[in-house]
Amino acid sequence: MKELQTFEMSKRFEGIKLISAAAANSPQDLIPLSFGFPAKEAYDISLMAKCSRKAIEEGGYKCFEYVGGTGPSRIVQWLKKRGEIRGIDAAEENILVTTGSGQAMDFVARGLTNEGDEVWVEAPTFFGALRYFTLAGLKCRQFEIDEDGLKVDLVEEALIEAKKNGSKIPKFMYIMPNFHNPGGVTLSVERRMKLAELAITYNFFIFEDDAYTELNFTEKILPAVYQFAPERVIYMSTFSKTIAPAIRMGWIVAPAEIIMQLRMLKADGSTSVMMQEIVATYLETIDFDDHVAKISSIYKSRLDVMLRAIDDYFGDEVSYTVPEGGFFLWLTFKSEVDPAIFERNAIEKGVSFILGEDCYAENSEKNHIRLCFSYCDEEMCKEAIKRIAEAYYEKYPMKKFV
Amino acid sequence: MKELQTFEMSKRFEGIKLISAAAANSPQDLIPLSFGFPAKEAYDISLMAKCSRKAIEEGGYKCFEYVGGTGPSRIVQWLKKRGEIRGIDAAEENILVTTGSGQAMDFVARGLTNEGDEVWVEAPTFFGALRYFTLAGLKCRQFEIDEDGLKVDLVEEALIEAKKNGSKIPKFMYIMPNFHNPGGVTLSVERRMKLAELAITYNFFIFEDDAYTELNFTEKILPAVYQFAPERVIYMSTFSKTIAPAIRMGWIVAPAEIIMQLRMLKADGSTSVMMQEIVATYLETIDFDDHVAKISSIYKSRLDVMLRAIDDYFGDEVSYTVPEGGFFLWLTFKSEVDPAIFERNAIEKGVSFILGEDCYAENSEKNHIRLCFSYCDEEMCKEAIKRIAEAYYEKYPMKKFV
Repeated sequence: MKELQTFEMSKRFEGIKLISAAAANSPQDLIPLSFGFPAKEAYDISLMAKCSRKAIEEGGYKCFEYVGGTGPSRIVQWLKKRGEIRGIDAAEENILVTTGSGQAMDFVARGLTNEGDEVWVEAPTFFGALRYFTLAGLKCRQFEIDEDGLKVDLVEEALIEAKKNGSKIPKFMYIMPNFHNPGGVTLSVERRMKLAELAITYNFFIFEDDAYTELNFTEKILPAVYQFAPERVIYMSTFSKTIAPAIRMGWIVAPAEIIMQLRMLKADGSTSVMMQEIVATYLETIDFDDHVAKISSIYKSRLDVMLRAIDDYFGDEVSYTVPEGGFFLWLTFKSEVDPAIFERNAIEKGVSFILGEDCYAENSEKNHIRLCFSYCDEEMCKEAIKRIAEAYYEKYPMKKFV
Repeated sequence: MKELQTFEMSKRFEGIKLISAAAANSPQDLIPLSFGFPAKEAYDISLMAKCSRKAIEEGGYKCFEYVGGTGPSRIVQWLKKRGEIRGIDAAEENILVTTGSGQAMDFVARGLTNEGDEVWVEAPTFFGALRYFTLAGLKCRQFEIDEDGLKVDLVEEALIEAKKNGSKIPKFMYIMPNFHNPGGVTLSVERRMKLAELAITYNFFIFEDDAYTELNFTEKILPAVYQFAPERVIYMSTFSKTIAPAIRMGWIVAPAEIIMQLRMLKADGSTSVMMQEIVATYLETIDFDDHVAKISSIYKSRLDVMLRAIDDYFGDEVSYTVPEGGFFLWLTFKSEVDPAIFERNAIEKGVSFILGEDCYAENSEKNHIRLCFSYCDEEMCKEAIKRIAEAYYEKYPMKKFV
């Protein structure tokens, strides 16, 4: 047998961060505040089981094929109707069901750009999106957020500058206007309108990630950015946070010609027709408004408990914007604090979180951590904060800041 | 409102062919011999319905999450065991379940290469693979097949030449050794061994697409190419042809370090855990050997009917290699025949097929068509050939070849 030579993998992987690798060898009783998983209590197991059987029995062989069946079009109809509450006026040709929002991000990243293009993102932003953009060979330039979301004035300045210098306008800007991941903030209506106007004036797309929008702790529903510039917004959301991640189902709403192009990336037929039949049956069986109200109240309670614990254990050591929905709390330490220093300590005490520095495309700010309040129950949320505080104070004795 | 400017989509789409577009406005009673769909009769609707309910009820909330549950590992165990009949000796770390074989092709195309790299393919080859390779920015160089599959001697010559010239060795060569799509041929064992040896000597991967392997009309099972060079083969197959396309489930078997890298492209968690639970339950309920024997006999009968009709209607006008399994028959006309000339005519008569020219990466040979004998029943297969013959003889009166 000849000796094996080294094989060089793709350079496409360069620059991809491994997130939360520190928790890989974690203790058995770890409380995971790392990832955005729904609550176990949010799943209706019995109903899903019944709907799956019903959908397959009633759909027959049409549930087994590459394309077709009634489920896919029932889901599109459902999405069309649901979009209206946010001012999304879309036709069937504007909607593409995807295999999770991950597939949607991959399609938009590759479908709108060429290797080496620049795209714009928020700072901080969702690390998963950065991964897709990096894999597509894109450079990411970031723009600050504050308690009203993306600072659109900074984006405008950069666009004016780019125009003046003759440098390239980004193909798209990726934003998360509602219950931002990881920032927890919500983009103001004025900024939504302004950003939409910029997209049309400067001819780029807004890639609007609205994954958490249904988990709303308030009475108000803000208009999607899509509403203000349907020709230059690609809206994306997912059932992962409202029904279940394991069904792998998300969707895009975009101009018909964009949908047609992105379909070319979906070379392998539709997102599971069988799963679409099951999900369509499920959606038609439940009262979705009731359902999201119920699960949102679970998340709101967990957040409240977590915030009380943070106030109790950390006091003035940290600051945060109270999220009005979603899964995430963005905890900001004093500028000299680097949570990487107490992360290992925290894991040993049985709690994991995401380092803020992993949520930036460039020039990472270190003094933040992302806490997910959705997955762990109230007791665990409280206990987790206690453990983080212990880990923190061991490395940063309080007097340091006195 | 400002006027909208033109937006330029990605160059990644350049060179992608639209397949079978001619059939877009087809008559109602079209007999589709175009695409590789399983027979309706191959689906066990009632059992799948029962298994889905059972899997979800028994799996509980673990069926709803991003990762986890028992289904994914049950499937990996099943695949590990099943691989043994083809000499595939793999551990769990060598197996990655994918969302259809399409996702596997996308991952391998992007994971092993850089934009602008060359990969090698067979001529003809599966047009879907060409699409993924093109989208990944790859150039495809093709190598002829004959009745024993890929002409491996031509590959060796090209490797020697590349070595001599100092030009690049391809990152991988994509092949379909069993019941070739579209060629219908099977790669001989000698050539499998020789190709495996070349992969090790010249340090490239063989990307072994074994989608149709279970639909075997003979008694003999050939060893996978993987068996001869597990360090330099990426084996891929799918449940789309044996269970259902709509479950979107395929898999890769490869060296552990390749699997680790490809997992990075799967940024969005596992292939649907819920669907993996359902499929695992289904696989554990049926007798898979019986199942594939039963469905293979359906396909064999349809092929036999189609071949008889071809002999009756076409006689010496065409030639073919009789497939020993799979879904496809590759019909070769005399060299001066261009089926594009009678394609529209055939569609008007109510039958569709794939033009041979769409199955080449370069220098398309025109005088072939791909016929799929899996989807349409025996009567339809016979009728389809009659209609193709009518369309053909209208454009190519027989005397022309006398």
